Amino acid sequence: MKTFFDPASIAVIGATPRENSLGSQLLVNLSLGFTGSVYPVNPNYTEIRSLPCFPTAENIPGPVDLALVIVPAPSVPEALAACGRKGIRRVIIESAGFAETGPAGRALQERCLAVARKAGIRLWGPNCMGLVDIPRKFFFTFMHPNIHSDGLIAGRISMVVQSGMLSAGFLADLMSERAVGIAKACSIGNKMDIDECDVLEYLLEDEETDAIALYLESIVRGRRFLELADRARKPIVLLKGGKSRSGAKAALSHTSSLAGNARLQDSLLSLAGVTLARDFHQMMEVTRALAMIGHTPKRCRTAILTFSGGAGILSCDLVEQHGLSVADLSASTIKELANIFPDWMPAENPVDLFPAFAGKGALAAYVGAFNALVKDPKVDVLFMHFFVGLYPNYEKLKNFKAAADREGKVLIIWVIGRRDALRAFKREAQECGIPAHGELFRAVECLACASRCKPRKRTLSLAAAGRAKLPPKAAAVLSSCPEPIWDEYDSKRLLKICGIPTVKEKIVSSAAGAVEAAREIGFPVVLKGLAEGQVHKTESGLVRLGLSSSSEIRAAYADLAKKLKGKERILLQKQMPVEYELIAGVLRDEQFGPCVMFGLGGIFAELQKDVVFAPAPLSASTARELIGRISGKKLLQGFRGGKPLDMKIMADILVNLGNLAAACPDIGQIDVNPLVVYRGKPIAVDATVVRSEK
Amino acid sequence: MKTFFDPASIAVIGATPRENSLGSQLLVNLSLGFTGSVYPVNPNYTEIRSLPCFPTAENIPGPVDLALVIVPAPSVPEALAACGRKGIRRVIIESAGFAETGPAGRALQERCLAVARKAGIRLWGPNCMGLVDIPRKFFFTFMHPNIHSDGLIAGRISMVVQSGMLSAGFLADLMSERAVGIAKACSIGNKMDIDECDVLEYLLEDEETDAIALYLESIVRGRRFLELADRARKPIVLLKGGKSRSGAKAALSHTSSLAGNARLQDSLLSLAGVTLARDFHQMMEVTRALAMIGHTPKRCRTAILTFSGGAGILSCDLVEQHGLSVADLSASTIKELANIFPDWMPAENPVDLFPAFAGKGALAAYVGAFNALVKDPKVDVLFMHFFVGLYPNYEKLKNFKAAADREGKVLIIWVIGRRDALRAFKREAQECGIPAHGELFRAVECLACASRCKPRKRTLSLAAAGRAKLPPKAAAVLSSCPEPIWDEYDSKRLLKICGIPTVKEKIVSSAAGAVEAAREIGFPVVLKGLAEGQVHKTESGLVRLGLSSSSEIRAAYADLAKKLKGKERILLQKQMPVEYELIAGVLRDEQFGPCVMFGLGGIFAELQKDVVFAPAPLSASTARELIGRISGKKLLQGFRGGKPLDMKIMADILVNLGNLAAACPDIGQIDVNPLVVYRGKPIAVDATVVRSEK
Repeated sequence: MKTFFDPASIAVIGATPRENSLGSQLLVNLSLGFTGSVYPVNPNYTEIRSLPCFPTAENIPGPVDLALVIVPAPSVPEALAACGRKGIRRVIIESAGFAETGPAGRALQERCLAVARKAGIRLWGPNCMGLVDIPRKFFFTFMHPNIHSDGLIAGRISMVVQSGMLSAGFLADLMSERAVGIAKACSIGNKMDIDECDVLEYLLEDEETDAIALYLESIVRGRRFLELADRARKPIVLLKGGKSRSGAKAALSHTSSLAGNARLQDSLLSLAGVTLARDFHQMMEVTRALAMIGHTPKRCRTAILTFSGGAGILSCDLVEQHGLSVADLSASTIKELANIFPDWMPAENPVDLFPAFAGKGALAAYVGAFNALVKDPKVDVLFMHFFVGLYPNYEKLKNFKAAADREGKVLIIWVIGRRDALRAFKREAQECGIPAHGELFRAVECLACASRCKPRKRTLSLAAAGRAKLPPKAAAVLSSCPEPIWDEYDSKRLLKICGIPTVKEKIVSSAAGAVEAAREIGFPVVLKGLAEGQVHKTESGLVRLGLSSSSEIRAAYADLAKKLKGKERILLQKQMPVEYELIAGVLRDEQFGPCVMFGLGGIFAELQKDVVFAPAPLSASTARELIGRISGKKLLQGFRGGKPLDMKIMADILVNLGNLAAACPDIGQIDVNPLVVYRGKPIAVDATVVRSEK
Repeated sequence: MKTFFDPASIAVIGATPRENSLGSQLLVNLSLGFTGSVYPVNPNYTEIRSLPCFPTAENIPGPVDLALVIVPAPSVPEALAACGRKGIRRVIIESAGFAETGPAGRALQERCLAVARKAGIRLWGPNCMGLVDIPRKFFFTFMHPNIHSDGLIAGRISMVVQSGMLSAGFLADLMSERAVGIAKACSIGNKMDIDECDVLEYLLEDEETDAIALYLESIVRGRRFLELADRARKPIVLLKGGKSRSGAKAALSHTSSLAGNARLQDSLLSLAGVTLARDFHQMMEVTRALAMIGHTPKRCRTAILTFSGGAGILSCDLVEQHGLSVADLSASTIKELANIFPDWMPAENPVDLFPAFAGKGALAAYVGAFNALVKDPKVDVLFMHFFVGLYPNYEKLKNFKAAADREGKVLIIWVIGRRDALRAFKREAQECGIPAHGELFRAVECLACASRCKPRKRTLSLAAAGRAKLPPKAAAVLSSCPEPIWDEYDSKRLLKICGIPTVKEKIVSSAAGAVEAAREIGFPVVLKGLAEGQVHKTESGLVRLGLSSSSEIRAAYADLAKKLKGKERILLQKQMPVEYELIAGVLRDEQFGPCVMFGLGGIFAELQKDVVFAPAPLSASTARELIGRISGKKLLQGFRGGKPLDMKIMADILVNLGNLAAACPDIGQIDVNPLVVYRGKPIAVDATVVRSEK
C-alpha cells in the first residue's frame, strides 16, 4: 500500500492540456506538492504543461511506481495492459463507467481485474477521486484545483470514503468553512481490488494519522474489517450509507454496493470498538475529537467554564443526558473561584464568568477560573465556552492546552462569535489540538464518544473460528436430521448436547404414554404437534398449554392426534413458569460470517427490536459484554424483587451457540425463541435449526 | 406590550459618556436606527453624545414612552419612582444584582415591583439585555455595538430568551457566521413582571414574526403558556434549560428560575403543539425552517436532487429514519430525467446529477432535473443539495422558489462549499425564504418537524376547567375520607363513582365472609391487608395472590388477620387475568395546574418511563391523542393475536380522571397502578388517592 501513498514517480494516463478537463486537473494537482517525476501519457500530444508526453505507458523512459488512469472506461483494459508491460504495479483508476452503470460496465470491470491480476497490478478504484495527502500536498486526484485554493489545513485525521464528493467538495467545506484539519483522504470508489480493509490497515499504521473516519456503502470483507477494528489502537469512526430500504437501493446504483443487514453490522462494529456516526460533518467532528482527546476517564467529571449562564445550564443538561457527570468541585477550587467572583455570586459548577467580567476583566477572570479548575482532582474535563470577536477574553489556546496536559486533563471547546474571529480561533484550536465545536450538543456528544472509546484490548475471538469443535454427539444429530428446517424437538436435542439448558420434554406416541411422561416430568405440561416446517404452531392450534391433570392430557392428546392424522410427532413438555422471555440464536452473514444473536423476547420483541450480535465464536467475556449491550438490560438485573439473570449460564449459552456456528457451516440459522427466564435461570423452550442453503 | 417594541421616545436612565460602559453602549445602540426622541438621564452630566442630559426622569421636558434603566441595582427603586412621577409607564431594567444574587437581591426586586405596581408601570427585566428589532434596527440594549458590526440580517423569526448571551453574542454568531435572519430578540431576564407569556402573546400577533423560538429556564405561568400555544397559528419552538438535576440547580442561580418537572412539561407542551429543541443553533434552524416552510404534507414524499451519490444515499437513510418517505417518482418524471442522464444511468430518486454534469453541464442538468421534479404530483418536497464556490451549478434561488410556490411544493437545502461562496449562498437562501442547512441530518430533522407541525386547531380544553363537576356521590366519598393518603378500597370507590372501571372487590371481616364474597365475585381471588399509609403492600407480605379454593382463602385470611392484629381492613378482590399493565393518574403541578397522566405499567415501567401528560380537564379526542403519544403504543394495538386496547373505555377513564382533577382541588394526586388490560379492556386493580397539601 505504501507505494500508493508515497510513490517516487507517477504516470498520468489520459493527461490532456484542455483547461478544466479531468486529465488536465490531475496534472495541475500533481504540481502542487508532489516532487517526484510526473509522466503525462496521451498519444495525441508530445508535451503537456511543459512535461514530455508519451503515447503509452510503455514509452516512459524511467521507472514508474504509480499510474493514475483517467481515460474513458472502454480504453482502461488496454491502458492497464500497457502498465503491466511497463512494470507499473500500482494503478488508480479514476474513470467512471464500470460496475455502477450496469451489466456491461460490470463485465468491463471484471476484464480490468483479470488484466491486472495477470500483470501483478494492484488496482485502486475505479469510479473514484483517488487520494489526497494534505500535509504533503499530494493530490492524486482530478478534483478541481479551486477546491483547495482557500488554503489547506493539515490535521491528523484520515478519511476513507466511498464517494467522490466526500473527498473533494467536502474537503473544501471542511477546511475552508469549518477549519477542520485533515491528513489523508482516500476515495475508493467501486473498490474492485483495493478495498476499505486494505486502506484501513495502512492508515492504522500510518504515523501521520491519529484517527480514521470512514464513509462506506458496503463492507465487503466484514470479518476482516472486524479483525482490524478489534486490534486497532486508533479510534475508528464509521458512517454507513444505505441502511434504509431506499438508501440501500441507491447504494447499489452509486458504487454498485450491497448494503447488507444494518442492525447486524452496527451491532458487530460497535462491539469491535468502532464508533458509529450519523452524518458527514458529525463524523468528522467526532473523529477529530477522538483523535485529539484520546479516551477520557469513564465518568468524565466535567467542569463548565462559560460566559453565559444559559449555555452553562444547557451544558449541564446535555452532560447528564449523555450519561456523563457534572463535576462536583473541590472545596479549595471553590475558595479560589470565590476570589474571582463578586460577593453575591456563589462559586459553583457551571462556572458562569459573566458576573466576574466587570471586576477583574474578562481575560483575567477566565484565566483565573481555568487555573483553579485545571488542577482540581475532582475534575476530568474542562468544557470551555468562548465568544470571540469582541473582548480579548481568551489567552493563547496553547497555554491552556499545556496546562491541561500537565495536569492530565481533557479540554473541549464550544465557541460562537463573529465570523472572521471565529475562523481564526478555530484554526488556532485545530493547531494546538483542542476540539472546538460550534454547537453545544455536538461538543458533549463528542465527549461522550471519547468516554466510550476505551484503549483497545482485543475482545473478539475471530481467530478461534477455525478451532471451534462440535461435541461428537452433535455430529450424530446433524447427520440424522437432513431436513432443511428442523422441528423443535430435534433442534433442542442438538442444543442440549452443545450444553444449552433446554426444557424437559419427550416425544409421546399415545395418550397413556403422554400421561406417563407428564408424571415423570411434572405437571403442568404442554402438548405440541410438530407439523413439518410448521414454525407457527400456536397460530395453527397445535399447542395445548397448561395441562394440569391426566384427563386434560388425554383429551388434548386425542384432539392433537386427530388434527395431525397420525402424520406428525407429538411432543410433551414441562410448562415453565416465566418471568420474562429472551431470544438467542445463530445466523450466517454473507459479509460478516457466522454470528450469535441475543435479545429481549416476548412482548418486548413486539414493541421494539432489541437484539445485538457478536461474531462467532465468542469468549465468555465477550458474551457478557454482548448481554450488557441490549437497551433493556435493566430488565436482566431483576425487578420487583426478582433475581438477576444468571450471567454465567447466559454467557455459556451464547458461547456454545457461537461454537456451534463456527464449527458447523452446515447450520445456517438457529432461533432459540423463547429462552424463558424464571428466577434468573434461562432455559430454551422452543428452538428451530435451519440448515445452510447449498 | 406595543409600547415596549415601538416607543416614540426613550429615556436612558444611567446613560454615561464613558467609552465601553453599558450606559454609553445603550446610547450608541439607540443611534443605530431608533428615530424617536432619546433622553439621557444622569445627574453628573448636562450633555452626552450631543444630547441634553437630565438629572432625573422627572426633568425630561417632553412625554416619554419607555425608560431603559442601567443604574446600579440599589438605585433602581428610586429611578422607578421618578419614572412613575414623570408618567413613564414602560420600563426595561437591564441592571443585574436582583433575585439572581440571593435573598437581599430578591428583596430589592420585590421593592422595585411594589414601586412599579403603585405607579402603574409595567416592568421588563431585571438582569436582562432588553430587546432588539433587526428589521427596524432598534437596539434597546446595552450589548456591545461591535456585535452587529458584521452586518444585520433581517428575517421573520423572533426569539424570547432568558439569557443575555443568547440575545447578544448569539445574535452575532447567527447573523455573521450562519446567515440566519432575525426579526425580534427579546431578553427577559428575571421576568419579575413581564414574562414569556406576555412577550409570546405579543409576538403571536406581530406581523413581522412568522415563528417564535424560546429559550427558557422556567415557565412560571405554565397554564397560560399552554393556552397561548394551543391557539397559536405560528410555529413555537422551545428549548428548556434546567432539565437535569445539575442544570436545574444552575438555573436557580442564573435567573432565579425553578426549572420544574421536565418530563411533564415536555409532554404538555408538545401536546399543545410546541416543537421542542435540544440546542441553541438547532432551535434556530428548526424555527427558521418552520417559519419558511410552514407545514408540509404528512408523508413528505421527498425527491432528492444531489451532486453526490453518497449524499443522496445518506439522505434516503435519514428521510426514512425520520419517518418521512423517499418519493417514488412518476413515470413521466423518470422519462424527462432520462434526457438529462447518460444512457447507462438509470433515472431514479435520489437524483444524482454528477454523471449528468459532463453532458449538459452542471447548471443545465440541475435546472432540467429540478423542473422535472417540481411538477411531479408524487413529490411533496424537493431536498436540494448544493456545492458552491466552484462551478456555477445553480440558478438564482428565487427562480427555484417561484417554481416551487407555483406548484405548491416545499424546498429545503443542504449546502456545503467554499467559505465565502457559502455565506453568499446562505444569505440568498435566507432572502428568498428557503431554509439552507449545513448538515444533512439537520435538514431532514427540520423537515420532520415541519411534517409534525400541523396548522393548529385548538385541541386542549383548558377553558373548561371551571366547568368540570363532580358526581354528587363523589363529594360524599371525599368528605368521608379525610386521610391524606387513601387506601386502595376507598380510592377505587371514588374512581368507580366517577365512571372508571374497577376490579370487583369487597371488604371482608371474617374468613367465612371472605369465602362467601369469593363465591359471589368468582375464583381465583386475592386477599390484601390495607395497612394505613402502606403503599408497598406486596413487599410487606400483605398480598395473597391466586387463591382458588375456600380452604386457601381461609388460610390466607387467618394469616393476614394475625399479621394486622385486627387493626386494619382486609380486602378480597377478583384476581384479574393480565395481558399487560398500564398506569394512569392525576397530579397537580405548581406551574401547569391539574394534569392527567397515562403510560405503560408493569415490566415496561421498570425498563423505561413511558408516560405522557395532558392538562385537566381533557376531551375524549385529546385523551385519544394522548394515548397515541406513548412510545410503546404498538403494544396497545394488540400483539400475538390479542385484541387492541378499547380506545373508548381508555379515553373515558382519562376524561373522568381529568374531570375529577379539575373539579376537585382537594385531590393532589391519584395513581391508578396497575390498570390491567385483558382482551383489550382496561380495569383499575389498585389505586391511591392523595389529598392536596394544605
